[in-house]
Amino acid sequence: MMPFEFHMPTRVVFGQGVVEKAGHEARALGDRCLLLTGRGSARRGGTLERVSRSLEGSGVEFALLEGIKSNPLLEKVHEGVDVARQKGVQFVVALGGGSVMDTAKAVAAGVMMEGGDVWDLFTGKAQVEAALPVLAIPTIAASGSEMNGHMVITNQDKGLKLATGSPSLYPRTALLDPALTNSVPRDYTAYGGIDAVCHLMEPYFNGPAQDPWIPDRLAEGLMSGIIEATDRALEDPCSPAARANLMWGASLALCGLTKAGVGEHRFPVHLLEHAVSALNDAPHGAGLAAILPGWLRWRCQVGGGGEKVAQFGRRVLGMKDPGENGCAAVDAFQSWLEGVGAPVDLSSLEIDQGDIPALVEHAWYQARIWGMDEEYNRGLIEELFSRCLYRGGR
Amino acid sequence: MMPFEFHMPTRVVFGQGVVEKAGHEARALGDRCLLLTGRGSARRGGTLERVSRSLEGSGVEFALLEGIKSNPLLEKVHEGVDVARQKGVQFVVALGGGSVMDTAKAVAAGVMMEGGDVWDLFTGKAQVEAALPVLAIPTIAASGSEMNGHMVITNQDKGLKLATGSPSLYPRTALLDPALTNSVPRDYTAYGGIDAVCHLMEPYFNGPAQDPWIPDRLAEGLMSGIIEATDRALEDPCSPAARANLMWGASLALCGLTKAGVGEHRFPVHLLEHAVSALNDAPHGAGLAAILPGWLRWRCQVGGGGEKVAQFGRRVLGMKDPGENGCAAVDAFQSWLEGVGAPVDLSSLEIDQGDIPALVEHAWYQARIWGMDEEYNRGLIEELFSRCLYRGGR
Repeated sequence: MMPFEFHMPTRVVFGQGVVEKAGHEARALGDRCLLLTGRGSARRGGTLERVSRSLEGSGVEFALLEGIKSNPLLEKVHEGVDVARQKGVQFVVALGGGSVMDTAKAVAAGVMMEGGDVWDLFTGKAQVEAALPVLAIPTIAASGSEMNGHMVITNQDKGLKLATGSPSLYPRTALLDPALTNSVPRDYTAYGGIDAVCHLMEPYFNGPAQDPWIPDRLAEGLMSGIIEATDRALEDPCSPAARANLMWGASLALCGLTKAGVGEHRFPVHLLEHAVSALNDAPHGAGLAAILPGWLRWRCQVGGGGEKVAQFGRRVLGMKDPGENGCAAVDAFQSWLEGVGAPVDLSSLEIDQGDIPALVEHAWYQARIWGMDEEYNRGLIEELFSRCLYRGGR
Repeated sequence: MMPFEFHMPTRVVFGQGVVEKAGHEARALGDRCLLLTGRGSARRGGTLERVSRSLEGSGVEFALLEGIKSNPLLEKVHEGVDVARQKGVQFVVALGGGSVMDTAKAVAAGVMMEGGDVWDLFTGKAQVEAALPVLAIPTIAASGSEMNGHMVITNQDKGLKLATGSPSLYPRTALLDPALTNSVPRDYTAYGGIDAVCHLMEPYFNGPAQDPWIPDRLAEGLMSGIIEATDRALEDPCSPAARANLMWGASLALCGLTKAGVGEHRFPVHLLEHAVSALNDAPHGAGLAAILPGWLRWRCQVGGGGEKVAQFGRRVLGMKDPGENGCAAVDAFQSWLEGVGAPVDLSSLEIDQGDIPALVEHAWYQARIWGMDEEYNRGLIEELFSRCLYRGGR
């Protein structure tokens, strides 16, 4: 195990119906907030009204900003910062998926900036120094944004989707109500499960093993549980057990728990995916699914990676004899992805050879900001996109 | 899964040599503290001097209180409260095992009480309202006290060993330096691993399953990892991998993570063990080992418990075919306990039939304070102690 610091300060309130506590939890943060939500599902399903009523019932005034789309846009962050400043809000409530929570964090940090633009936080030109408290109420199990300090925003003018993070961005409170996710459609339920599994896989496959028995076991346990819960949620979309386990698993997947002790690592699959969804606005989980098999096949071929992929096959996928080079485990994982209806190569997302230069440019730009350009150099990035074009590539 | 709240606010700094950061971390909490330690191992091994020097180097004044024994005593808490008040300290540093950390928490809470005695916090007569910050520097992987809000103190006058807890008691910072545990002797290394596994087992075997896939997977992963790390630490006491994984596993085992979602539950094995070590001052982990096989055999016989014990055998102990009634898994676990040199019945701790009435009285008293006297009534407590007297009992 490698040295680490771990601090996950978010307070979690979990259970069917806890959305009704929104007002109570908000009141602890102040009496004036900005309430952010997406493009209509929270309104249509009645959740927005439940939250609004709960806030009003607890004496919390709010300004509402709707219409945040997936792959959330910088212009919406600017709009949020303007409203938040105008109304003098004390905190931000995010009711929605990762896009809404990430926008909330960006607004929370943007309000506190004295000069410059929020986008500077993503390009590395500025650091998050402080942020308003955020109350996160996720409506999909996927990003884990409710229990971490990361955010991803797309700048449409520049054609860039960039990520950054800070300890100040952990939501103060996360209200996790699994019943809110009952209405998530089949494809997005699967994409959410895939996103969560991918958050666990990337640190898990972080180079040669250094005896991370506990981190490995935690990641393997969460991956098993999330895969099981995803399958069950697809079979029975209103299963309380499936929705609860999927939500809790996804929240834990990126809270820092399983990466503690694995050493410095990055998120290469997310790096490549951000380029894909910046290019064609694909759902994030679909983009990850299209890259994972190709990336895993490459991982099997470098520095002992195959052995670890085989361990994944044995411990997570329950394979009796996954061999040693990891190939069988990748095939089995790809079959799981196909089984839940996800694309398993980039061509399924209508990306072809001609798009690769643009994808490489984007990923290479982010790789330098994340300081991972030494391992993931331009040549490797290009190789990986090529491998992922068609299923079973190389 | 059942509703829950989860908040683990302790900041963790982990790695070989991080003990040298004691002064730096302490300085963030103030410039005057009480430093508590045990009966000499930290002094003999040079750790006390390293911490003292680090505190001085960072300009932190400290009053030193040594001599805290395992199964720590109330009188030492009183002494600590007196010194802390006299010196006007701002926080408490605990350098030692669970006994030292628990004493530090009791002192931290006691200092803030305006009337009454610290013991009132344990009998239920008073609640912890506030506490000074605690900086925990564990020197053994066992209790998990460095990352939770629990404490256990023995009142020798009354012959009682009682536990209580509060969110205010989570250490502010935990400095986890696995190298400090290299010198822990063989028997205490094993007892520490057993204590940590037991912390995971008790919520894991909490009555009928309610689809706790994620909590189960987390507990199973940690139990596997801790068992592996304990075995390796006994083979090679200075193995950095073994000591690091054992320390991180033990810290995570009782931080609230794996019990989130399993519903209301108590710690019956700990309940019974506290009576044992109050009676004969046995090491806590040895007492747990003496009770676990008997308690597990009883668990196999009540409400679906056998199936879960068999699941434990399959997923944690790696048994190919543990059967369905759980008996084979208990046998295998008992063999592991014997293999690491632990007693597996109460007679090995020189407890006989004649001691049972006193043990029952003690456990029954604590059961009522913990509000678990409905399930663990006097009759069941007596039955369990009898089952645990001789190995393989009923």
